[in-house]
Amino acid sequence: MTRRDLLRMIGVAGGGALMYQAMNNLGFAAESPYRRPASLQGTGKGTVLILGAGLAGLVAAYELGKAGYTVQVLEYNARAGGRNWTLRGGDVYTELGGYKQVCEFDKGLYFNPGPWRIPYHHHGVLDYCRQFGIPLEPFVQVNHNAYLHSATAYGGKPQRLREVQSDLNGGIAELLAKASDKGRLDDLVSKEDREALLEALRVMGGLDKDFRYVEGHASSERRGFAKHAGGGPDGKPQFSKPNGLSDVLQAKLWGSLGINEQQEYQTTLMQPIGGMDAISKAFVERIGKVVTYDAKVTAIAQDEHGVSVTYEDARSPGQSRQAKADWCVCTIPLSILSQIPIQVSAAKVEAISAVPYWASSKIGLQFDRRFWEEDEAIYGGITGTDLPIGMISYPSHGFGTKKGVLLGSYTFSTEAFEFTALTPAERVRKGVEYGAMIHPQYKGSFENGIAVAWHRSPFTLGCFGGWNDASRAKHYADICSMDGRIVLAGEHASYLPAWQEGAILSSLSAIDALHARAAAGGHS
Amino acid sequence: MTRRDLLRMIGVAGGGALMYQAMNNLGFAAESPYRRPASLQGTGKGTVLILGAGLAGLVAAYELGKAGYTVQVLEYNARAGGRNWTLRGGDVYTELGGYKQVCEFDKGLYFNPGPWRIPYHHHGVLDYCRQFGIPLEPFVQVNHNAYLHSATAYGGKPQRLREVQSDLNGGIAELLAKASDKGRLDDLVSKEDREALLEALRVMGGLDKDFRYVEGHASSERRGFAKHAGGGPDGKPQFSKPNGLSDVLQAKLWGSLGINEQQEYQTTLMQPIGGMDAISKAFVERIGKVVTYDAKVTAIAQDEHGVSVTYEDARSPGQSRQAKADWCVCTIPLSILSQIPIQVSAAKVEAISAVPYWASSKIGLQFDRRFWEEDEAIYGGITGTDLPIGMISYPSHGFGTKKGVLLGSYTFSTEAFEFTALTPAERVRKGVEYGAMIHPQYKGSFENGIAVAWHRSPFTLGCFGGWNDASRAKHYADICSMDGRIVLAGEHASYLPAWQEGAILSSLSAIDALHARAAAGGHS
Repeated sequence: MTRRDLLRMIGVAGGGALMYQAMNNLGFAAESPYRRPASLQGTGKGTVLILGAGLAGLVAAYELGKAGYTVQVLEYNARAGGRNWTLRGGDVYTELGGYKQVCEFDKGLYFNPGPWRIPYHHHGVLDYCRQFGIPLEPFVQVNHNAYLHSATAYGGKPQRLREVQSDLNGGIAELLAKASDKGRLDDLVSKEDREALLEALRVMGGLDKDFRYVEGHASSERRGFAKHAGGGPDGKPQFSKPNGLSDVLQAKLWGSLGINEQQEYQTTLMQPIGGMDAISKAFVERIGKVVTYDAKVTAIAQDEHGVSVTYEDARSPGQSRQAKADWCVCTIPLSILSQIPIQVSAAKVEAISAVPYWASSKIGLQFDRRFWEEDEAIYGGITGTDLPIGMISYPSHGFGTKKGVLLGSYTFSTEAFEFTALTPAERVRKGVEYGAMIHPQYKGSFENGIAVAWHRSPFTLGCFGGWNDASRAKHYADICSMDGRIVLAGEHASYLPAWQEGAILSSLSAIDALHARAAAGGHS
Repeated sequence: MTRRDLLRMIGVAGGGALMYQAMNNLGFAAESPYRRPASLQGTGKGTVLILGAGLAGLVAAYELGKAGYTVQVLEYNARAGGRNWTLRGGDVYTELGGYKQVCEFDKGLYFNPGPWRIPYHHHGVLDYCRQFGIPLEPFVQVNHNAYLHSATAYGGKPQRLREVQSDLNGGIAELLAKASDKGRLDDLVSKEDREALLEALRVMGGLDKDFRYVEGHASSERRGFAKHAGGGPDGKPQFSKPNGLSDVLQAKLWGSLGINEQQEYQTTLMQPIGGMDAISKAFVERIGKVVTYDAKVTAIAQDEHGVSVTYEDARSPGQSRQAKADWCVCTIPLSILSQIPIQVSAAKVEAISAVPYWASSKIGLQFDRRFWEEDEAIYGGITGTDLPIGMISYPSHGFGTKKGVLLGSYTFSTEAFEFTALTPAERVRKGVEYGAMIHPQYKGSFENGIAVAWHRSPFTLGCFGGWNDASRAKHYADICSMDGRIVLAGEHASYLPAWQEGAILSSLSAIDALHARAAAGGHS
């Protein structure tokens, strides 16, 4: 089979065959839907207009460009990346309502208002990082020494995660061991399994040799000691006293522990060293000058010959311009696309309007010292709280250095509205006030902050597409299907809403469809 | 109170008062036995001989030097650090028996044959890293996507940790929910707690809405999907099928899961960027030229006026030299010290000989590509196995780069002997052979390796002091007590055997005792 035969085959099969081969070479086997796009150099003909230079748009521009298409990208912002975005000192951000903020972080400090972590199974994101040589480091999601906090439980005193988790697992394991001992499981567990079950309960719960979860070495080894082991004559450690199961259950601090076991938050999560925007910057470096910035799309039309997009300068609206191409990959968030006339089927228009977007709010706070590390031995990870800030997350990098930027609040949905009813400056002030209820050092160490509310961001009007089972069933196929010469892409056209991986996989799927259509002769 | 009064008080109290103050400033409160040593500048008079330039010796030299003492360090090796040690390309290591190895790692790759991780609560290590500006990064201990492997379970096929852990927790939680449903817990759990218990079981076990652990979203979200969620029309994920509790219990792969919940292995563990020896190097930079290398101590004597240590050049033994000082901090491992005449009480001599040292063996293996990342999505963490290699650990740094060094084997005690009966080169060969049973890619990708067996290392003759309850009760006080002008220090003089923190805390305790004795007039 010649190279030409092979390429023809790719054209017919829409790239699928080679992609599967590439997938197998990558060894991800059946588990991942990601395939590194096969080499399509020289096979693509014609022009493609890509709307939006977020990750979906950048992937489309990069891969279609490599395949031989002539691409042009229209981007609303003055930068690429979209939600793949990192704020540093000097950066300016203006929210709906005209609230302009200038980031005042010290040099070297940053904050990712959008995506901030990459799960190990997001093969698309990771493979682009590998291809582009983007250095990654571990992102700490779970920190046993961070807090679980409720304004009402334990008199508002934050509890270490290790204490709550150990006491819950220990109490539950002890309870089941007791039930087994009393013969209560005899009809539920075979005799052969019962002994293994007891050993497994010891492992799971940190039980002592008598299968009890009580003050002693086995429990302190997990929940922490009252006094750590040391050196010299006084080095002997002192045990801590576990909380009883009833106390732990009623304090309800365990509610958020489950999320840590979900695959999206399992170890190892990663982050690009220096900020998440390393990814979009690497794409921009490679696709060259095909991005037109400050371009606000106002209409998308198509006929049998091509696509015609009307846009205006986002900085000085009024004067319309036209861009034309054979094909269009539209990655504009549905929250915004639903306000733009687009010439697609009635079903697709309905679908575009049907997906509600989640609200979300984040705050980045700079402190003059890393008191969370110095005073409280918290290195990365997340403290959960039922205060309106939702959580505090500590940086996974720069351990032991002087200053640091915390994620001072991260809230979703209705929670986020409480915060975003306020101006950005007031959100920062409130974030410091609430945070000080967990870390009193906030008051003496706070230097500056910045607030980003995604549903008030002019380029997204929301954080991510809020699919549910009903809307999926009714509209998802219409969002994803190619309509004439237009195909949609973005996290909203995936089963991975909010994740960068969703944007990438959706884009690869979209360009696959586009390429197949183009190779078949361009007729829809 | 004048500065002079204050310093006098420190002299009388042996520095304890100020140390407690420093401790409170650091905010570690009652939990940690670590106190940053108070400023003792100018208060120390006289000379101190320090035996061994491992972490205990380096801390003593640094702190006593700062306090005004004149210090000299005798070190057996041609380098400082002791077990704080990093091997890189070009390094040479010769084990007992004359087995000389030259490390062949590529530039930028390294392997820590000794300590390789720092727990968040090892405040002494972390505070020195902070003081010295040593950059730290997260060390990944637990990786949900690494394997649990047994040569016998599941036909020798490695299982992902997430699968075993989810199926175990899910099966146990479902079992307890069932017992509760059948009224079996009615006398064990109050009515008020029962509802909270069920919710907690759902959180702990990933149960569905009917409190079952079965094929579906709730279980796949933890154990992993058969097909991940993706983008575009075919983006829908496919659930995986959990293993039943009986299967999971009998396969016995859960045995090592408990260790991940122990405080020493909880998140966040850290490592110095570029190798653990950054710590000893930072000390050496600060203590200047007080270390005499290649100095093999052969006798330690004392009288009421001072200490006299006999040593010879480790490279050309025979010619004895003498070093004298007012005081001595001896950090030589007991395994070696027990072979050196030392003028201390009979009880201390007995104690020195009474502590057995653990055997331990490690292998570092370089591969031409990171197949564990590329093919298997394993970024850092540990695969446990019942093969003689004990475990495989993947680097927590350099994610996505081309080559990498694995910890190819780490074994203790009797397990270690099976390996160390072999020559280092044969250990490496065996390590590759066994490892290939988990990662077949070993065979095509292996480039070179190096083996370190601590019980065959001439400068330690063991990995760490193997205390048990009986030997602690009988001998620990004698190891730690100051004997005339000699005090011992090292991980063996702590309740943190094997850990760098033990060496540091022991050393701080020892110099505190020495300083108190010196301030009291030098009489024992």
